[in-house]
Amino acid sequence: MTTNQLIQNIQKKKSFLCIGLDVDLDKIPPHLLQKEDPIFAFNKAIIDATHQLCVAYKPNTAFYEAYGLKGWKALEKTINYLNENYPEIFTIADAKRGDIGNTSSMYAKAFLEDLGFDSVTVAPYMGKDSVEPFLAFEDKHTILLALTSNEGAFDFQTKTVDGKELYKQVLETSKTWSNSQNLMYVVGATKAEYLADIRKIIPDSFLLVPGVGAQGGNLQEVCKYGMNSNVGLLINSSRGIIYASNKEDFANQARYKALELQQEMEAILHK
Amino acid sequence: MTTNQLIQNIQKKKSFLCIGLDVDLDKIPPHLLQKEDPIFAFNKAIIDATHQLCVAYKPNTAFYEAYGLKGWKALEKTINYLNENYPEIFTIADAKRGDIGNTSSMYAKAFLEDLGFDSVTVAPYMGKDSVEPFLAFEDKHTILLALTSNEGAFDFQTKTVDGKELYKQVLETSKTWSNSQNLMYVVGATKAEYLADIRKIIPDSFLLVPGVGAQGGNLQEVCKYGMNSNVGLLINSSRGIIYASNKEDFANQARYKALELQQEMEAILHK
Repeated sequence: MTTNQLIQNIQKKKSFLCIGLDVDLDKIPPHLLQKEDPIFAFNKAIIDATHQLCVAYKPNTAFYEAYGLKGWKALEKTINYLNENYPEIFTIADAKRGDIGNTSSMYAKAFLEDLGFDSVTVAPYMGKDSVEPFLAFEDKHTILLALTSNEGAFDFQTKTVDGKELYKQVLETSKTWSNSQNLMYVVGATKAEYLADIRKIIPDSFLLVPGVGAQGGNLQEVCKYGMNSNVGLLINSSRGIIYASNKEDFANQARYKALELQQEMEAILHK
Repeated sequence: MTTNQLIQNIQKKKSFLCIGLDVDLDKIPPHLLQKEDPIFAFNKAIIDATHQLCVAYKPNTAFYEAYGLKGWKALEKTINYLNENYPEIFTIADAKRGDIGNTSSMYAKAFLEDLGFDSVTVAPYMGKDSVEPFLAFEDKHTILLALTSNEGAFDFQTKTVDGKELYKQVLETSKTWSNSQNLMYVVGATKAEYLADIRKIIPDSFLLVPGVGAQGGNLQEVCKYGMNSNVGLLINSSRGIIYASNKEDFANQARYKALELQQEMEAILHK
């Protein structure tokens, strides 16, 4: 998917919501556990109920790997279901991968080509040759960790590197890499006050913003400091939407939670 | 496996060799492609031929994920084969994972408990709460990326952070985390001259050292600067051993390459 297609879809749906498909069998409605593939059954119901309200879905691979082979199979079925039924949806493999060049190429092919995701999240610690293999895929997107939503972000990311915080070094350095037009960045909603500075470095890039809801981030603050003329934001909510209820009506309850966020977004876009 | 068991095995085998099981179907002997599971057939043959000469095996998960479900299945079969037949071997999931706390817990459980690896490689960018869930597993080991073997290591890892290079900050900060006795570190063989400084910060920790062979690292240099009184090194070679031949005799040829390195290591240990 091109960035323009994503922007058009945001305008059409009046939403820049991304729903995190972080499926935990201990949290989904117990009646689904009887199904042949409970993880996929859960995802399919959530997707069918919410796809009109969001522009992106983001399965975090940890939740699928935790179930071994059946988890990996459910991930494949989920991305195939999305690509076949809702091709306008932007898909994100939240995998936080990164390795030396020839090995990163294997990850890039796995997620962007074989599984067919539109994008994948990548960790920056190993530098240029660990990220460029992902950037090489046309009309695909590499979402680089910049400033994450967790407390550990203050261990290294905000430390001063050669006169500038590490996350700013990551932003600036990454702009010099081949095919950097395919970059987006992860910036946690819990760090909204940093967004004004971040926008000075990457005014046009899309930001994937996790941490609204369960982690305490605030949508209004994120938009105030992070929005650009093309919106430029994908706001992720996972637990707050998908675990709204663990009863038979879970998908409907998830839809209500997604609708609340979509309406808040529509009001912001209208301003 | 405890660190003491690893040290005893190094002394017994007179080897601190780790063999990287980075299986690429384009590089393995063509006759194996007829097998039901070519990846596992290759690994089994390599392991059976080399297990007396090494103390560790390290599959890089990228190579398995690249083959989707069948790759993940081959990874499971490989770790099960190692644990059942050669329990004295130290096993490393080279996965370079890391996420916010509750999500890192899923990765830790997947690799250390469900798959049953002795250790997993982890990226430090997201800080303390992204690593501690791995450290919580008793008699398991978390191998933190410090200074990697690739060119991109110079993008951020060697930059000066608050008066000290980032990789040194990672080493020092990580020592303060809960269960830090379960930490080991990745230091690339191509950066041997940095090892003396690294040993000042972490004199006792084991280092996983990739990059000898195909990537140009030198074993003698690594040992000169990096070895401690318990050896403290696991030297990894992947392509140089496993792709020594792509003919019927591939396992034997791999054995010769492993033997060369083991003998070089035995001579170093004897000094």
